[in-house]
Formats: sequence, structure tokens, C-alpha cells
Amino acid sequence: MAILDSLIKENDKKIVLLVMDGVGDIPDKDGRTPLSAANKPNMDSLARRSALGLTIPVDWGITPGSGPAHLALFGYDPVKYNIGRGVLEALGLGMEVRKQDLAARGNFCTLDENGVVIDRRGGAGKRRLSTEENQELIELLSSQIKRIEDVELIFRSGLEHRFAVIFRGRGLAEGLPDTDPHIIGEKIRFLRTDDTKLQKTARVINLLTHLANDILKEKKPANGILLRGFSCPPDIPPFQERFRLSPCAIASYPMYRGLASLVGMTLLPVGEEIESEFASLEENWEQYNFFFVHIKKTDSYGEDGNFEKKREVIEQTDRFIPRLLELSPDVLIITGDHSTPVALKNHSWHPVPYLLYSPFVRWQKDARFDEEHCLRGSLGIFPAEKSTNLMLAHSLKLDKYGA
Amino acid sequence: MAILDSLIKENDKKIVLLVMDGVGDIPDKDGRTPLSAANKPNMDSLARRSALGLTIPVDWGITPGSGPAHLALFGYDPVKYNIGRGVLEALGLGMEVRKQDLAARGNFCTLDENGVVIDRRGGAGKRRLSTEENQELIELLSSQIKRIEDVELIFRSGLEHRFAVIFRGRGLAEGLPDTDPHIIGEKIRFLRTDDTKLQKTARVINLLTHLANDILKEKKPANGILLRGFSCPPDIPPFQERFRLSPCAIASYPMYRGLASLVGMTLLPVGEEIESEFASLEENWEQYNFFFVHIKKTDSYGEDGNFEKKREVIEQTDRFIPRLLELSPDVLIITGDHSTPVALKNHSWHPVPYLLYSPFVRWQKDARFDEEHCLRGSLGIFPAEKSTNLMLAHSLKLDKYGA
Repeated sequence: MAILDSLIKENDKKIVLLVMDGVGDIPDKDGRTPLSAANKPNMDSLARRSALGLTIPVDWGITPGSGPAHLALFGYDPVKYNIGRGVLEALGLGMEVRKQDLAARGNFCTLDENGVVIDRRGGAGKRRLSTEENQELIELLSSQIKRIEDVELIFRSGLEHRFAVIFRGRGLAEGLPDTDPHIIGEKIRFLRTDDTKLQKTARVINLLTHLANDILKEKKPANGILLRGFSCPPDIPPFQERFRLSPCAIASYPMYRGLASLVGMTLLPVGEEIESEFASLEENWEQYNFFFVHIKKTDSYGEDGNFEKKREVIEQTDRFIPRLLELSPDVLIITGDHSTPVALKNHSWHPVPYLLYSPFVRWQKDARFDEEHCLRGSLGIFPAEKSTNLMLAHSLKLDKYGA
Repeated sequence: MAILDSLIKENDKKIVLLVMDGVGDIPDKDGRTPLSAANKPNMDSLARRSALGLTIPVDWGITPGSGPAHLALFGYDPVKYNIGRGVLEALGLGMEVRKQDLAARGNFCTLDENGVVIDRRGGAGKRRLSTEENQELIELLSSQIKRIEDVELIFRSGLEHRFAVIFRGRGLAEGLPDTDPHIIGEKIRFLRTDDTKLQKTARVINLLTHLANDILKEKKPANGILLRGFSCPPDIPPFQERFRLSPCAIASYPMYRGLASLVGMTLLPVGEEIESEFASLEENWEQYNFFFVHIKKTDSYGEDGNFEKKREVIEQTDRFIPRLLELSPDVLIITGDHSTPVALKNHSWHPVPYLLYSPFVRWQKDARFDEEHCLRGSLGIFPAEKSTNLMLAHSLKLDKYGA
């Protein structure tokens, strides 16, 4: 919002944004959701002193990926600031993506003697490439292709046939189609463009494809590469400047660390367990005034369709709430980035439970933290992008607009 | 809303917008708000025949001043139509602000022998100027500075060290910074600008400052003036034309009379007591079809942090509801312009209770007029700017959109 900038004032109040990824759900035949069924006395007690609501991450009926869903919670218009597929893949593999980098997702594939794609997953139509084979091939490419023209190439393996590549150099731009034909029986699509801003990028991509396929020519079934999702990171105003906060991110998964670093949050070291995230919060409490804490497994179990495990992750997280409250945050938000209903085994468009704890809220007695109570909460249903307004307001960091 | 204009039709139905300033609140430790605790049988009875909801004056988390909050209720985008500080100060002192006037807020200040500001409140660092001293100084300035070039100068005293000044003439524009350095130990900031549209304005402001400081030079500690918030009234389409209503305003405080007159409402004479406002409503019932009635003290007591007094103002207002209903308004809206929670002693961002009485509403049995029942009301949470759509719709003054 344009006026926000002129209203923000700094103070010493501290804000925690605790995201349980994909926490929202839809009721099972007994009307239960993982959140409503969870034994989570701490969150439920907090709900009775908090404002509740439901957020819409992008728009009614729109299912967000992790990128737009988090950007919205970080206060950025998720349609205006679009993170390309290549950039998101690179972030997900823990790669650093700098301003002006170009990133792409890649697949190893199988080519026949005429250069026709006969398997898009590098298994000659019979199997999937193993992650170990992938890692060997990426080592080979990394050792032999370090630079094309003045552009540095950085490769990283993903699972099975997947990898990411970053092009780091001057004059690269996004806007090119994939080299991946997306169907078998066709040749790799070498790029041609009349747009002078894209010609260097197209040339480097084509050269990389030729070089890689030459290096891989004896490595059948993985004797070619397909690239897609060419993209540069969005030109996004840093969170720190935008909201005049000192922000840090506590997340163990590369994708979320990458998203946080894209908006300029400091990444804190953290282990894989939930406990290590809360320990990191405690250790770094004095150094920052905005803490993004990310719990991944609610989403993973939602995608597995595993109701009980999703519920358990909520219960595990709940047990750390007293430790968090010991720190006396001035504003604590507990929410998800989107819903991942067990019944859909996928992200969904359903509004996301949202709890905002502060002394200055319209709380309701008998509230609990679940989809149904959030629907009746004092915040109503609102765009996730407005969460940052609310957290600033409740931490008394906003001046009055107009006299 | 762009399409509204083509839909409005006139009829003889009458609308009352009763604004209890700052009426919204947040629950105390027992869950009570002034509105929920008030003994207000008439409003509660009305609530059971009304549509209830909550309004967002400007945006989620944004705390509005009186200007934007009222403009929203009057159906104007409060961000597009921004009322400058100087204009609002002049309105608040009961001055008429015309199109093309420039207005400023002023302070008497203390200057040392080198022209350095040593007290921004005209008390030589020891005390505040009294309102009586201020009035004498304003009389002196008014008698000696009537015109600079072709620009008429109009001064009016506020409380203590504060005053307002209106510049009335041709070719004046807003966009200049304050002459007030905002800190002590610095000199008054005489204005310089490269913008040809602002040069006349800057010249007149600088001349005024020189003249005034010369006139005041023996009046230490109040031997200088600081000016800030230079602004012109927004170019705002008149309420009467926009909504094809014949509007009047019943408000006793200058600021709200000023805001109403800015959008073109006729100001009715009224005393300071709530009773006189309802008497004025009765006397003028035949002459108009839109009545803005403003109750100030709910906000004042909210800012004092006085729960009981805020509650009492609501109860006092409630006793006049039967007299109002005797007039048989076709639409009666009872709401606030914003919330002023007792716990915050300040305006806030919390959505504002809203009641719309008409024969054509989704009413709910057992409803009452308070924050919690409004949250569950049939209007939901909606932008205050849409209130004018709703009042026109419920008074059957809007045609169908499209066939």
C-alpha cells in the first residue's frame, strides 16, 4: 500500500511469524481437520487471547505455490512479484541466486541417434535416473563447463533426473521459452529470438546445450539435457527497508531459506528438527525484531495424505509455544502459507487459519485455533498480503494516516 | 465506483448517517466494550431489525485520522482524496477553506538574537504560551498583515501556541516543505524552490514570516512564527452531485463541520449538547434527504481512556433514538468513523461497528449493537467507502446494473 511507507515508525517491539506450511485443511467425513483434531493446549489457550481470521494467499480459488504464498505473508503482492520456476528450483536446491542471475530447471533426458527426445527423465523409457547417477553427471558437467563467453555456469543436482543451473554474468534476461519440447518424439528446441535484449542469453543457453550433450554423448540413457523456466529473481524491495524491521529467518528447508533471503532476511543456522528452530529463536532473540519461523512437515504430510502425521506435527509444534511465549513477543502470528488438505494431497485454494496474539485485539472466549473458529474470528477473511499491516499496527509501529 | 453514477435515481426517501466518533473498541479483561456494556435498549432493539457489520475505514491495520475516516463514510476514496494538515487544522478552528485557498498550521515560537529557534511553543523553554496571549498576538498580526501581493491573509488562534493561517489568492499551490525546522537549535527554514508553480507561494510564505517576526520582535518569548502542513483542499466532487442527494450536516465541532462543508453539505446551526443535534434534525427534516449527525464525545472519552464516560455518551445518544425514529427515516445508519479503544487512548485500526436499519435487510434475532454481534452480522467486514452504496441501495435509489 502506497501510504504505508510514510506511516512506519520504529520501536523496540518484537514480532514472530510462525508459519506451519500448508496447515489449513478441509473436514474429513467426521468434520475433523488435522488442526481441529490436534491436542494443542498451548495454541488453543493463545487463541482465547488472540484475534483469529482466515487469509486468502493470492485470490479466491487460486492455489498458490510456496513462492507466492510466502511472498504474500511477507507483505508483497504475489502477482506483481512473480518468482520464476528456475529461480524457485535453484532456491529449493539451496543455491544462492543473486540479482541479475538467470536460473533454469533442468532434466537429464535420453536422445536417439537423430537427437530426438525419447525419454524426458533420462531413463531410456525404462526407469528413472537415480539421484546418484545424476550427481556423477553434474560433477562431470561442472568440471568441464565453467564459463561460456563471460557467463559463469553453476550446476546443482536435485532428485532423480532433476537439476538446476545458474547463469551468472552480465546482460542476461528472462523471457525465453524452454528448450524442453515437453513431449517425446521431438528434438530439443534451440532458441531463436529477434529481441536484442535476449540474444546473448539465447546464445549462451544454446551453447550450453550443445556442450553438455557433447560431454554426455556416451552416457546414454542420460545423454542430453532439457532446460526450462528461465528466470531472473524479481526486483523486490528489501523487507528490512520496506517495513523498517530487522528481519531474520529460521527455516531448515532450502526453498524457504531461499525465499527469505530473496527479500533480504538474514538466514540463521538451524538443524532439521523443530526443536532446533526454537533454540535458534531463543539464541538470536536480542539481535532482531522480526522472526520468520518455518515448520515444513505439516505440508509434507498433507501432500502424503497422512492426516495423523500432519496432526502430530501440529502437536509437536504446540509443545514449543510456552518456550516461545517465555521470550514475550509483542506480536505473535501463527498461520500457514496455504492449505494442503489431506484429501487433496496437494496445495489448495482454501483460506488459511490465522492467529494474531497481541494485547490489542478483539479476542473471543471459548475460541480454539482451527478452521472453524478462525472463520468466526474478529479478523474475518482477508488477503494474506495484509498480514504485515496488521503485525505493524499491533506492534504500534504505524502512525495515524491523515489528521 | 465508476458505474455508480449511471445507476443513481432520485426518490423521496430519507437517509440518516449517525456517526458516534471513535465508537469502536476492544474488549477489556472481562470481555466488555463501552458499546457492549452500555444500556442502550433503543439501539439494541433496532439491531434486531437491521443489518449489522464492521467497516474498515482505510485498509487493514491502518489507523485513520478524522479526515480520511469521514471521507470514507461519505463515499470518497480516503487515499485518493487526501486532506492536508493545514486544511484540517483550519477546518478544526472553524475557518472556511475555499477551493484554491492554501492553509497552514502555525506555532508561535521563541527565537534568540541570531534567529535560532530555542522553543517551538513560544514559551522560551519554560512554559507553554497561554491561549489568551495567543489571541492577542493573532489580533496584532491580523490587524497589521492583511495582504501580501494579491494574497489575502486570514489568521485564527488555536489553543496555547497553535494557530492557523489561510492564504487566499490566485496561483497558490501545495507541495512546499515546512518553515518549521521541527527541532530547536536551528533557524527557521525559508523556502526556496525551482518549481515555477510554487515560487509565488514560497515568496508569500517567506514574506509573511519576515513580516510576522518583525511585528513580534518585542514579544519575546513569542517572537516568531513557524508554519507547516501547507496544503490546498482536495479537488473533491460535491456529495450532492455525486450521490444526487440533498445533504446537510449536524455537527457541533468545527473539524467535522469543516469536513462536511468540504464535500458540499449544508451546515445546520446546532448547539453543543446532543439534544440540540436531534432538535436540529427534527426542525430540518423536510428540507433535506441526507442527514449527517455527528456525536463527538465517544471519541474524546476514548482518547481519555475513560470507559465509563464513553459508555455514558452511547447511552445518552441512545435516548434520542425514539425521537429519530419518529421521523421515519427510510435508512438509518449508526456507526463510527473509526475505533478509539479506551486501552489505546488513541484512534486505532480496528474495524468499526456498523448498523443499517431499513425494511430490506438480512436481520438476525437476538442481535445487539456491539463489536461481537456486528462481526457476525449480515454485512460482514467491508470497506467504509462502500457505506454510501449500501445506503443508496437500501433507500431504493439505485437502478440495476446491466440487463
